[in-house]
This record gives sequence, structure tokens and C-alpha cells, in this order.
Amino acid sequence: MPYVNIKITREGATAEQKAKLIEGVTHLLRDVLGKNPATTVVVIDEVDTDNWGIGAESITVRRRRGQ
Amino acid sequence: MPYVNIKITREGATAEQKAKLIEGVTHLLRDVLGKNPATTVVVIDEVDTDNWGIGAESITVRRRRGQ
Amino acid sequence: MPYVNIKITREGATAEQKAKLIEGVTHLLRDVLGKNPATTVVVIDEVDTDNWGIGAESITVRRRRGQ
Amino acid sequence: MPYVNIKITREGATAEQKAKLIEGVTHLLRDVLGKNPATTVVVIDEVDTDNWGIGAESITVRRRRGQ
Amino acid sequence: MPYVNIKITREGATAEQKAKLIEGVTHLLRDVLGKNPATTVVVIDEVDTDNWGIGAESITVRRRRGQ
Amino acid sequence: MPYVNIKITREGATAEQKAKLIEGVTHLLRDVLGKNPATTVVVIDEVDTDNWGIGAESITVRRRRGQ
Repeated sequence: MPYVNIKITREGATAEQKAKLIEGVTHLLRDVLGKNPATTVVVIDEVDTDNWGIGAESITVRRRRGQ
Repeated sequence: MPYVNIKITREGATAEQKAKLIEGVTHLLRDVLGKNPATTVVVIDEVDTDNWGIGAESITVRRRRGQ
Repeated sequence: MPYVNIKITREGATAEQKAKLIEGVTHLLRDVLGKNPATTVVVIDEVDTDNWGIGAESITVRRRRGQ
Repeated sequence: MPYVNIKITREGATAEQKAKLIEGVTHLLRDVLGKNPATTVVVIDEVDTDNWGIGAESITVRRRRGQ
Repeated sequence: MPYVNIKITREGATAEQKAKLIEGVTHLLRDVLGKNPATTVVVIDEVDTDNWGIGAESITVRRRRGQ
Repeated sequence: MPYVNIKITREGATAEQKAKLIEGVTHLLRDVLGKNPATTVVVIDEVDTDNWGIGAESITVRRRRGQ
């Protein structure tokens, strides 16, 4: 029954990589807490770099500086 | 004052269907808890099927199998 | 497969009322979008009135004024 | 370490405006609670007006009426 | 920079188990997407069984039936 | 109409400090985007330090080391 929301910046994650995140976190919840994979829901949000901030500035600005 | 977030897969819900969800959940909160519709906020997120997982796999993969 | 998060202030909602919210929103998603109730997840968050703001002030302050 | 999620309707907020939101809320958390800007995360979600409801109707419908 | 929110029912997860979830999901994001663990944030919400619904009923009701 | 969710660790924020966060972020949205304070909703979540992770470990563990 767990619900997991993963937010990452939209920078080209592939369907294969997202499938690995879904599988990995579902198995983690099964292994650590015995949660049933059949009812474990995972939602991945990809967020534009203009819309994600850390250190008081957007990721767009950080990427421009090479970070 | 309630806030409701509804997450569904992006598979063609129409503006009319989304309007019905907004109206229905707002009325539910009024009828069950006496909440004021004027300040009830509803946000619907439509999520790509690659980005939604259940049972350790994405909805894209499930749909391909006819589920 | 939908996921619904309902946030309300913590002001004495009973288990029966919360059960009605869960049932009502699950049926709404079935009726409007044909979603399967068996995999519809609903999570209700009850938030302290100090921690909920509207109109630039907390609900605690509004309740004190009789709103 | 705080995490802030700001949801607004998608109605043309510019990168500059979003940068001001990121900076403003990060500084607010530093000034009020002493939180470290370097680890303060801000995520802005822009939501289609069909997908945002208040007063039991969508923002699309309200905008049509001039609200 | 990823942000992960894990929601589980409040049924006795220990600090050690929660530490394993934090470590596991942080390493998953590093291994699959190359994300930096130093800025990966994980927040675990434990939700009362009255406040979690699936299949149109609360987990409290399901647990009573032995599910 | 904006909705803002602020997540911080539960480490003694006072009602006054939380009122300042509510007021500050509401005014920020008014000043930057012209949003109406009357319908701006702010929800603050205070999260146990065992339930918040960064750098692959919980805040509880970091605090013990003096971080």
C-alpha cells in the first residue's frame, strides 16, 4: 500500500531509467518493511529546471555556471 | 479550506470529466464535513504512464500487456 | 490506480466521516473515469490549525475571531 | 533542509518571476527559522487551468466569466 | 537534488527501518541517474490507518478483517 | 489561488514563527505574481527528524554528530 513520489529535474531520464526507479523503490519497501509490491504505487514527477530551486537560485542558473 | 490533490494517469480525461471530479469532491467535503466550497481547492495532476508504477512496473508496460 | 490526497484542518473529523470521504472519492473516480476502486488510494492529512494559512494568517487566528 | 512546493496556475509566469519566488521563499526560511539556503529546495508546479478547481468549478470556467 | 516522499501506514516502522529506506532510495537515485546523495532529500510520512484508504475502505477496516 | 506546502523538521518552530512563514509566503506571491492573498493557501508540515533524510542518513543521526 505504500505511495512513493520521486521528484527529479527534467533532464532526459529515459523510460528504462524510470522503470528501474519504480522497480528499485518497490523492492526496497518489500525488503525493509514487508510491503506488498502489488499495491505499491510510485509516481515520478519531472520538473523543469526553471521551476526547481536550491541555494536560492534555479537549477537553470546553476547549470549555466556548470554546476 | 480543504485542499485535494487527485493524481491520475494521462490517458485522455476530458475537461468535462475533470470538471466533474472538481465538483464531486468539493460537494463531498461539504456534505461529509460541512466544508465551504468557496475555499475548497482541487488540483488534478495527469501523469505520463512511463512515470506511474504499480506492482514494480510502469503503467506503460501493463497497458502493453492489455491490463 | 488513482492517488488522492485530502488535506483538512485537524478539528475532530471522526473515523466514520473519514471513511465516507474515502468511499465517496473512490466511487467518484469510478463513476467519472472508470477507475478501479481496488487500486484507488486515498490519504487524508489532518493539519494543525497553527500550520494552515489562508488570507495571510493561520486558521487558529481566524477561529479566534469566530471565522 | 526545508522543502517548499509552490503550486500556481499555468498562466505565463516568467523565469524571472519564478526565480524571485525561489529566492524569496528561501530567504524567508533563513530569516524566520535560520534554515540554511544551501539545502533549501523549492519546487514550483504550474497547473493547467482545467486542472485547478475552487468553488466547485475550474479556473478555466472562472476566467471565462472574467474572474 | 532529487526529492522523495514515502508514505506508509503508521504501524510501527522503527528508526532503523526508516534509516534503511532513506539510505536505499538515495543510493538508488545515485546508481540509476547519477544523482548526488549530498543533496537528495527523503521525507517519510507515517499515516494513521483510519486516514488511508484503498478499495473504498480504510486500512483500519481491512486490518480488522485480517487483511 | 496558489497552494504552498512548506516541509520543515519538527524542532520547535513556534506558532509565531509559523505565522510569519504564512504571512511572508502569501505576500511574496502577491508581490511577484499578483496573486490574491484571500485565496492563497499555505500548509506547513513538521516532520520528525527520524523521518527526514539528506545525504543518505536521517537528520537524527546528523544532529547527533552536531550537524
